[in-house]
Amino acid sequence: MAEKASRQGIRFRPHFKTHQSAAIGEWFRDQGVSCITVSSVDMAAYFARSGWDDITIAFPANLRQMDELTDLACEIHLGLLVESTASVDALRRGLNGSASAWIKIDVGAGRTGIPWDQAGEVSEVLKAIQQSPNLEPRGLLTHAGHTYHAASKDEIRGIYDTSRQRLQTLRSAVETQDFASPRNPLNRAPGDETRPDQNIGAGDIASLQISVGDTPACSVVDDLTGVDEIRPGNFVFYDAEQYLLGSCAWEDVAVAVACPVAALHPDRQDVVVYGGAIHLSKDFMDDHGRPSYGLVALPEGNRWGSPIEGAFVRSLSQEHGIIHLPGPAFARIRVGDLLFVIPAHSCLTVTALGRYRTLSGGIIPTMNVQ
Amino acid sequence: MAEKASRQGIRFRPHFKTHQSAAIGEWFRDQGVSCITVSSVDMAAYFARSGWDDITIAFPANLRQMDELTDLACEIHLGLLVESTASVDALRRGLNGSASAWIKIDVGAGRTGIPWDQAGEVSEVLKAIQQSPNLEPRGLLTHAGHTYHAASKDEIRGIYDTSRQRLQTLRSAVETQDFASPRNPLNRAPGDETRPDQNIGAGDIASLQISVGDTPACSVVDDLTGVDEIRPGNFVFYDAEQYLLGSCAWEDVAVAVACPVAALHPDRQDVVVYGGAIHLSKDFMDDHGRPSYGLVALPEGNRWGSPIEGAFVRSLSQEHGIIHLPGPAFARIRVGDLLFVIPAHSCLTVTALGRYRTLSGGIIPTMNVQ
Repeated sequence: MAEKASRQGIRFRPHFKTHQSAAIGEWFRDQGVSCITVSSVDMAAYFARSGWDDITIAFPANLRQMDELTDLACEIHLGLLVESTASVDALRRGLNGSASAWIKIDVGAGRTGIPWDQAGEVSEVLKAIQQSPNLEPRGLLTHAGHTYHAASKDEIRGIYDTSRQRLQTLRSAVETQDFASPRNPLNRAPGDETRPDQNIGAGDIASLQISVGDTPACSVVDDLTGVDEIRPGNFVFYDAEQYLLGSCAWEDVAVAVACPVAALHPDRQDVVVYGGAIHLSKDFMDDHGRPSYGLVALPEGNRWGSPIEGAFVRSLSQEHGIIHLPGPAFARIRVGDLLFVIPAHSCLTVTALGRYRTLSGGIIPTMNVQ
Repeated sequence: MAEKASRQGIRFRPHFKTHQSAAIGEWFRDQGVSCITVSSVDMAAYFARSGWDDITIAFPANLRQMDELTDLACEIHLGLLVESTASVDALRRGLNGSASAWIKIDVGAGRTGIPWDQAGEVSEVLKAIQQSPNLEPRGLLTHAGHTYHAASKDEIRGIYDTSRQRLQTLRSAVETQDFASPRNPLNRAPGDETRPDQNIGAGDIASLQISVGDTPACSVVDDLTGVDEIRPGNFVFYDAEQYLLGSCAWEDVAVAVACPVAALHPDRQDVVVYGGAIHLSKDFMDDHGRPSYGLVALPEGNRWGSPIEGAFVRSLSQEHGIIHLPGPAFARIRVGDLLFVIPAHSCLTVTALGRYRTLSGGIIPTMNVQ
């Protein structure tokens, strides 16, 4: 991912919320990474303590942690997300230090951010930032999380292209500042293919950066040019969902949960493992039309093998995992054996388990468990 | 719950997996509780260190933690769950200490345990226990988790009655040891209302105890007699799911997550809070036909108020919670305010957050976070 970004002249600001580990952060530094993304103020403080000095918190600034934000703003180059003048005003008054401000844009995922077609609202927030001496306007930032629900790689590519286009259109609209004019790209008739940036000076456009960053798109889209920054995170490990989505190959998935077999139910071809919601999280994926909490593999040497055909985690309670495991593999399994569950969502599994055991037996801590 | 059990002459062995806190365990001791249930070997070790000396691990014995089980068996009165002769054999060979063995029975929840109508299989496991010098047969144990999906209190009561009846029938069948005989209650024609225990001696029946224990049933069923032990856990806090199920009143719910408001979306009447899957867990409940991760209340003094009509947590990602909040309450909310989310499932939320803040500002640690 670092090479891809570098090849295309794009800033690589990987999201560290997936691994949450200072030790794993060093693997990124070895690849020349110098700026990162995190998802909480606490996570920013943790990585700042590990020597990272350019950190964007990719969550709307939490105004109830103003003291912690001030500490970070004084210590590192801090990037914050805002999406309302109310937030900007609170930061102007409360943040005793300077930070970059990204305006969070919703390009279609429907989670949070100002909708991409509300240039007037974006412009108001931008003006508020410009009037805040402690905030430097940085650009437009989005997370096109709807790629996670795409049915194909082509659909992922389509979402990426649409997202990039929407951000570029919005940037032009905000920079022309002339929302009623037919020259404003948001007011053009559908089908008008004029490139938005042909109507305004390149200098204006260059002032607002564009930051995008979901793992599916960053993995499958070849041409990432046209944005300034990418922020994928999950790709460091991937997971069963990304594998099913086509973002990665099975061999690219780098986390699994080793679960002791606790009971066997040959009549219904279910295996009960010690590996429940508190280990795997209760996030599930769409596995060929059925909800699944993870895929399953047998141990192979010091690692796990290929996915067992047809096997999946069909339900989870606090400590119980119920694996449906049809076919001949069932007969080889005994109570007390280990099965590997490749979780639906590695980020949440990492948070739940708190630390890693490597294939060679070493322990890697995270911010949650030393 | 302690009073109810005591009134009916039933052993109260509360499940501590909900609160996971030695300090909260003391509240139970104040009520005369002397024996407890936990869901993992680690949790048993934690509470043993806090002075509990009669602990049942209500999860099929994890054969990969035999050393830890041995330590516990030497130290306290340990109860283990088994559901196969393979497990019993492994414990007979590996456990260097004595423990009580409960046979885990599936009365219809379909999670794990020997199906209640497989008396032959239960009998085989019982024989294996009897042949293990380090295991003392204790009885039949079930978790009728399907009460969580009941549509009414009457349905919960119905499930409870059926479960108790199935366990009593199974106990009689196992104790007669005569699976082919028409005198065996499992072989009676449907509609034959003869009480199973009329056919065998009371002394035989008394030797195998019956342990049940889901919170919905223990909360709404008045007459719990006919079992030897109850093991509810969730009732210590309850949660939004139990409230919707009718197990408790709103005022009985004793945990909520205080979530800072991060963004407002008046167009879709959504509030984005800093309170995501890593805080609330991704467990959801059926809230009038829609999936919901929690109910929502406004702060009232040092606590939370009534549920906001129509408000619910409609989606969660790692750190984001999206609350749908229709109606006049929306206009009163500002970025930086606190909203209280009453989680769908308190057990998982407690595990995720690791410790408690009381209404008077004190901190209560758990086994996960000191």
